[in-house]
Amino acid sequence: MRISELSRTGGVPVATVKYYLRTGLLHEGRRTSATQAQYDETHATRLRLIRALIGVGGLSIAATRAVLDQLDDPPESMHELLGMAHDRLKPADQEDVDTAAAEALVREMGWQIDGADPASLHRLAEALAAIDAADFTLPPGRLRDYADVMQALADLEVGDVPTESRDAAVHYVVLGTILAEPLLLALRRLAQINASSRRFAAGAREPRRRRSVTS
Amino acid sequence: MRISELSRTGGVPVATVKYYLRTGLLHEGRRTSATQAQYDETHATRLRLIRALIGVGGLSIAATRAVLDQLDDPPESMHELLGMAHDRLKPADQEDVDTAAAEALVREMGWQIDGADPASLHRLAEALAAIDAADFTLPPGRLRDYADVMQALADLEVGDVPTESRDAAVHYVVLGTILAEPLLLALRRLAQINASSRRFAAGAREPRRRRSVTS
Repeated sequence: MRISELSRTGGVPVATVKYYLRTGLLHEGRRTSATQAQYDETHATRLRLIRALIGVGGLSIAATRAVLDQLDDPPESMHELLGMAHDRLKPADQEDVDTAAAEALVREMGWQIDGADPASLHRLAEALAAIDAADFTLPPGRLRDYADVMQALADLEVGDVPTESRDAAVHYVVLGTILAEPLLLALRRLAQINASSRRFAAGAREPRRRRSVTS
Repeated sequence: MRISELSRTGGVPVATVKYYLRTGLLHEGRRTSATQAQYDETHATRLRLIRALIGVGGLSIAATRAVLDQLDDPPESMHELLGMAHDRLKPADQEDVDTAAAEALVREMGWQIDGADPASLHRLAEALAAIDAADFTLPPGRLRDYADVMQALADLEVGDVPTESRDAAVHYVVLGTILAEPLLLALRRLAQINASSRRFAAGAREPRRRRSVTS
């Protein structure tokens, strides 16, 4: 297909497709003349992936390239895969942060991390530090609740990683990590609305319903 | 205290404190001369909060101002509080997205949303669309797993909202929403490493341990 059709298929302006070609996110098409090239299904698939990573994943062009590189050339060891994926998705900041509380939680949970994912440990430490800095106090046991819930989720998720091919595993891990994050956060917010509605609006709802019956 | 001490207390350069004063994020101090002002504990507290919102919350200056406005002037109704908080934290994009799948999930979960949080419904729809667009298939039942887990979490969280004062409730809801998000995502990633380590590295770990015994 021509670039105009690729643009339509991917739902992306031609100028954007050209930008992805120039920056190497999208591989070159097959030249048919000095000014034209033909593109195929591999381009359309890659274009959809780029859109998902940049759009909802919220990744920068550089981070998107890192993810695509990883998909194109996955690491040898399945065990190191996740840590590498996490680190490439969001490298640890250089800023110093005390990781003692984060490490204590990891120990309390009995998690085997073994330095495999410094970026995520750093993010956990930052999140805990920000809660402190904002004078926000989590209810007793809440941090442990959060960790328990995420452990249950992670066990499910990692249990589903396909093992028949390294490519399939990397694809699953990298996309599953990125794409499920906005999903989980949106679900949490909607579930909070539901819980809030049940807790705080029940009183207001009941009388209204009764009135409508008698009116 | 002088601005230099406020700067030290808050761990923020004087220039940044001045910027927060200029943009109105931080309230003016008490003028003691044409060029000097005195600041108190309310300034230090607010400064820590601003740092947490911008730093880990990842909020823009404008979003930070919206959150602070909400803390300063909370809405009347407890029930509408969360939806308003979510909307101010990240207003829905204007881009069109099909919310049918998101609404179907909300119905399946039996969640009472009633249009209270269009921003989060929109984010859920976007997250689902991105998963489709990336040709990523969630395992059967996984979406429901995610929703179940987030519902359990939200029930705990909303159950803890303090009701003795509206201010306390707003403070809790707004900060709890923002500050727990990076916490949850970091915990998920570390829990994935742990699960991956148990699933994929167990074989590699055992022989090594045995060797060390016999060597």
